[in-house]
Formats: sequence, C-alpha cells, structure tokens
Amino acid sequence: MKLLKLYASLKPELQSIEDSLADSVSSELELLDDSAKHLLKAGGKRLRPVFVLLAGKFGHYDLERLKKVAVPLELIHMASLVHDDVIDDANTRRGQPTVKAKWDNRIAMFTGDYIHGKALVVAGQLEDPRIHRILSGAIVQMCIGEMEQIRDFFNTEQTTRNYLLRIRRKTALLIAISCQLGAIAAGAPDRVSSALYRFGYQVGMAFQITDDLLDLCGTEKAIGKPPGSDLRQGNITLPVLFALREEKLREPLLAEIAAIREADGTAVSAPAVKLVRSSAGIAEAEKLADRYIAKALRELDNLPDIPAKKNLAEIAKFVAQRSY
Amino acid sequence: MKLLKLYASLKPELQSIEDSLADSVSSELELLDDSAKHLLKAGGKRLRPVFVLLAGKFGHYDLERLKKVAVPLELIHMASLVHDDVIDDANTRRGQPTVKAKWDNRIAMFTGDYIHGKALVVAGQLEDPRIHRILSGAIVQMCIGEMEQIRDFFNTEQTTRNYLLRIRRKTALLIAISCQLGAIAAGAPDRVSSALYRFGYQVGMAFQITDDLLDLCGTEKAIGKPPGSDLRQGNITLPVLFALREEKLREPLLAEIAAIREADGTAVSAPAVKLVRSSAGIAEAEKLADRYIAKALRELDNLPDIPAKKNLAEIAKFVAQRSY
Repeated sequence: MKLLKLYASLKPELQSIEDSLADSVSSELELLDDSAKHLLKAGGKRLRPVFVLLAGKFGHYDLERLKKVAVPLELIHMASLVHDDVIDDANTRRGQPTVKAKWDNRIAMFTGDYIHGKALVVAGQLEDPRIHRILSGAIVQMCIGEMEQIRDFFNTEQTTRNYLLRIRRKTALLIAISCQLGAIAAGAPDRVSSALYRFGYQVGMAFQITDDLLDLCGTEKAIGKPPGSDLRQGNITLPVLFALREEKLREPLLAEIAAIREADGTAVSAPAVKLVRSSAGIAEAEKLADRYIAKALRELDNLPDIPAKKNLAEIAKFVAQRSY
Repeated sequence: MKLLKLYASLKPELQSIEDSLADSVSSELELLDDSAKHLLKAGGKRLRPVFVLLAGKFGHYDLERLKKVAVPLELIHMASLVHDDVIDDANTRRGQPTVKAKWDNRIAMFTGDYIHGKALVVAGQLEDPRIHRILSGAIVQMCIGEMEQIRDFFNTEQTTRNYLLRIRRKTALLIAISCQLGAIAAGAPDRVSSALYRFGYQVGMAFQITDDLLDLCGTEKAIGKPPGSDLRQGNITLPVLFALREEKLREPLLAEIAAIREADGTAVSAPAVKLVRSSAGIAEAEKLADRYIAKALRELDNLPDIPAKKNLAEIAKFVAQRSY
C-alpha cells in the first residue's frame, strides 16, 4: 500500500524515465526496434530507477542528470535479463514471451549487446569518469556472477558462501550502485553515497534470496513463470542448500536433483520443489533475507532525515515481504 | 615483406599490448580465465592495436596512454568474434576450436560480455569522455551491423548498398576509430584524427570485402576454416551479389542458395562457391576493394610526412593483397 503511494508520488519522474528508455533503444532497424521495445513493454518494477531517484534526493535533485544514470542502469539490467533467458532457455518472463522465444537466441544475444551499448552511450552523456568506472566495474562483476552460476549448475556440494557471492555479483551489486550513482549524480557527499551503496547492497541480497524463495513457493500466476524453474535449470538456490543439510531430506532431494539433471531439460522439478518446501530451508532463507533487510535499515540511520529516507525504508521492507 | 618489417619494428610495443591484453582478461574464475585466454592464444594480426600505435605517432607518442585505447579496441573486436561464432555456429576460427565449440554457447556469450566489460574498464582509465563516447557509439553500430547481417541472411534481393552499409558497421567503423582514437589519445590535432578516421574507414571496407573474397576463393589452410562458410550460413557477400546480376548464372546460383537454406546447416556450399568463382563478381569485388584502398591512400596525402604515414600506406596496400 505504502509502496503504491510511493510509485504514485514518483509518477511524473518515472514516466519521463520510461520515455527516455523507449527513446534510447529505438532503432531504424525494425528487427532491433521490435525486440528492444518488446522487452520494454514487458514492464517491470523499474526498481533501479526508483533507487536512483530517491538517492538523488540526498543531493541537488536534477531529473535530467539522474535520468542519465537511471536509464543506463535499467538498460544494463534489461540486457542481463535477455542474456539470462538465452542461458535459462526461458520462454516466458513476467508472463510475456521472451526475446529468445519470440525471435531466437541469436537475436536475443545481439539485442542484449545492443541495449548494453545504448546504456553506455546514455551514461557517456554525463562526462563523469567516476560514473563510467563504477558502471563498467559492475558490468564485469555481473558477467562473472553469470559464469559462476553456470559453473555451479547442479553442484549440490556448493556452500552457502558460494551462493551468496554469486548473488552478490549477479544482483546485489547493480542495486548497490543504483543507490550510489543516484547520490553521486546529485553531488551528494561521499559519506552519503557510500552509505547508500551499502544500503542497496543489503537490499539487493534480500531481494535475490526472496526471488529465489518465490521460485520455489510462489504460484505460476504470481511469478509469471512456472515455479521450480531454478531447479529445472540446475540453479541450486539457498533454500535448497539449507534443505540438503537435513538428514532425512538429503538423499531423496539429491536423487530428485540428479533425475532432473539426467533428464536434460525434460524433467519436472515438482517433486524436488515439494521436498524443499517441506524443509526448514524455506524459513531459514526467509530469516537470512530479513537479516539483510535489518542491516539495510541500519545503514539508513546515519543519513539525513528527509522523506526519501522513509521511502527507501519502505522499499526495503517491501522487498522482504513474501506472499505465498 | 614490408609488413613483416613493420611488425618487427613495433615488436616491443605489441608485446607490451599482448601482456596488457592477458592481464586485462585474467580472472580468478577458472572457467572465465580459460575461455578468455583461449581466445587470446588463438592470436590474430592485432590490426587495431597496430593502427592505434601508428596513429599515435602523429601526436605525443605515449605507449601507456595508447595501450589504454589499443587494448579496449582489440578486446571489443575479440568479444564480437566470440558472439559471431555463436551466431555462425562456427567450430573453428584461425584454425583453433572456437569458445562455443570448446565449451558451449552460454559460455561463449558471457565470455564475450565479460571481455566487453573489461574493455570498458581499461578505457575508463583514460578519463576522457570523448574516447568513451566514440567507443560506445561504435559498439552500438557494431550490434546494429550484426543484426542487419541476421536480417539479410539468405536475402538474395538485397542491394550492394545493403552489403556496404552492413560491413561499414560490422567492420570498417572499428578500424576507423582505432586510427582516430590513437590520434586523439596522443593529443593530435582534430584535422589529423579526422583524416585518420577516414583512412581507417576506407581500409576497413577494403579489408572486409577482401575477407569475404577469401572465404570464396581461399583454401581451408589459408583462411583457417572451410571455404564457403559465409554462404553456408546465409551470408550473401559482395561477389555473390555481383554474380547474381549475371543472366546465365542467376538462376542456377539462386537454386544452389535455396538448397543451402532448405538443408538448414547440413548442406555443402561448394557448388554455389564454384558458380560465384566462375563469375565476373570476383574481379568486380576486387576492383571495389582496390578503389577503397586508393581512397584510403589519398586520405594520407594531407598528413605530415612522418615514417608512420609510410607504414599506414604499407598496411593499406597489404590489406588489398589477395593470394588465392
């Protein structure tokens, strides 16, 4: 409820960002224009732009400057989704057919590359080497995270530390720099942009853990794709790692995961999902997500008391909300 | 012969660039380190770094600065090759197995993304927004070129203008900015960097036309992959477009191309290649490449008479040399 109000209060800014997103990916090449617009139309929470806008309130709020950070961040996120769908062999995302399903893998790959390139073009307009450095560093880390995910597919021996490092690179970092770059673009003091970076990082960790929980516990309607997708593709997430520690569950769960692996994409993950749901792994993962949110909220303590601070806290709390 | 001498004279600088390339893509993640190093080891002419170095001689030659332009350009080129191999379903390049053949398409995609990201990290060290702008603009154009290539696969009705626009984006632009950025990084006057950009553009066009000729007329040993690869994947190049204009050849050539398309990857392109070789299209394409080289050489006329100018002319002439 509070979140809806927040989005409503940011509506003109978010619409302006939406327009810039559409402008930035438009192309004379029909094929590219179609695939990029298709992605945009699928929507999304535009979480990274929201963080940019709120972080920008801690400095000299200038929408035009903030847009030049918000748009690249959302584009980088979108590009990673398109490439993810190639890897995951996903046919739907947010209830819509993916680029790779609607066109093909080749087109999805270059659409991702193109959107990525456009992100850099927009960010380049700010002519701030520091922003460039933070963005390109994050891009590299995200690629490493993606490769770690491939490396760790079906690896039931991985530690929870493996998992946490991976989601840090894959998800948390981009949210962290969304908060940081919003503050930097607005000329906020380093102390503020650093605190916001740490806030974003903690929120990002909680966000990914919650997302992974939803994939196990959500309904197809709620998550826009069949549940158990992660397991089906071999992505061993935190609740699964926790469940594997339970003596009674370990052997049957290992057997189910091995069966999914052997079936090479044709298996159903429902029995494995059921086992994980019956474990204490769900509650343990929820607890860890909540701890990240608590840490995120503490990071806000030392920031000036402006309305944006309350808004950031609201988003953080929303991220940890799970309805399944 | 002259070219070997030129490479020999640049040996220390090129070795230093080679070391920086290896450093820049090294990763703690073994999988990523292996795939990126595999690419590096396959070698290549390092044409873009050579252009950067020679262009740098027209200003204040500073190897450390020039490297920060040469390395990103070569990395961007390498990243495009890895993604190309996914598209082309190529199993060898330069006589070596491709990343997608040695590992798989997913790994090739993220290796490309990673190398790309690293290119931006290195370029960012220069803190020159103009360099960033030129690089990111070129990246976007290259993606559009790749998409145009996919769009135009098996399109026998495309014009030579289509082809020229496509190779301009896909190949010529990166060579053009290699020359331009070498000059800019060395602080050469705008007049010089612009002339070098135009020189590089013309050389790049000739280079791609010659490359496409080699795919039709070269031996497997000379080109490091089976000849006729372009036609097999549906890439209709300039000599083919010229051959299609010949009344006697048009129908049989169209039939052969249609047969390749229908066979969906399992066909041999040898009969189509034979038809194109028998046409005047080969000589016509050679003529056009030579015209681009002549234009490139004319661009050098107004540049200061330093040894690097002679070297650039030598490379231009070498690019147009064809031995088949």
